[in-house]
Amino acid sequence: MDSLKIPIIRDLDRSDLYSTSDFIAILNELSETQQPSSGECDKLYNQYLNNDDHHIIIAELDNEIVGTASIFIEHKFLHGGSRVGHIEDVVVTSKRRTVGVGKIMVKRLIKIAEDANCYKVILDCKENNIPFYVKCGFMPSQYCMRIDID
Amino acid sequence: MDSLKIPIIRDLDRSDLYSTSDFIAILNELSETQQPSSGECDKLYNQYLNNDDHHIIIAELDNEIVGTASIFIEHKFLHGGSRVGHIEDVVVTSKRRTVGVGKIMVKRLIKIAEDANCYKVILDCKENNIPFYVKCGFMPSQYCMRIDID
Repeated sequence: MDSLKIPIIRDLDRSDLYSTSDFIAILNELSETQQPSSGECDKLYNQYLNNDDHHIIIAELDNEIVGTASIFIEHKFLHGGSRVGHIEDVVVTSKRRTVGVGKIMVKRLIKIAEDANCYKVILDCKENNIPFYVKCGFMPSQYCMRIDID
Repeated sequence: MDSLKIPIIRDLDRSDLYSTSDFIAILNELSETQQPSSGECDKLYNQYLNNDDHHIIIAELDNEIVGTASIFIEHKFLHGGSRVGHIEDVVVTSKRRTVGVGKIMVKRLIKIAEDANCYKVILDCKENNIPFYVKCGFMPSQYCMRIDID
């Protein structure tokens, strides 16, 4: 009865990164991501740990990682030092996409932004994900432009 | 002959922030921004200085600040630790919007992202600014969603 289960949401932990990582496997469902070496994991996690403005959360069901999402807090000079939360890399494993894990993670990220005194939270998504984010309380706002660097 | 002039692009300096700041006045053209107190300026600038992933540039013409733009570098766990540049708060004073200052600033920000090993640069803009960013080499990508926090 997946639909009645409420996932546990917790912060990313160093141990989530190493060999045969479910966290990395789920990121790989979003965009191709190989398992980093142990040294690379150390480097990435230390960098993450040293940045108070970057938060990565993990969703678990039945002691299994089923989703992840992140937010970073931008400090602006606008409005006398306002802050904006940027949500990135929201993904739920394809096996559990129907049980509300995504919405619970997004709500947690909004709470993190609120606690960090952000006045707004933004994210970029594909057109077919707009209805999901509208259900989470978001409104279509602007257009995302991209340039690739070789 | 404004059209022949090439602006000087430089990093934001602490002295740009204090009383009767042209930098703050130009931000105010983008979105309402009051001049911060001297103490607030210290706090904001120190925070900025301590973040190696945040870059604010200033454009000058005839020793006058005519524009500003910023980029911050996001460190992802995707693709074994990829980086993305996020451009924010691009503004040229209304008196000088015809002389190519915006494009020169955006090109400089792309160079900063390249030097920081970003694989892409993204930004959000209003529909009427899409042609400007296409001229800068960007392509429409996704949709920006927003939620305001009270």
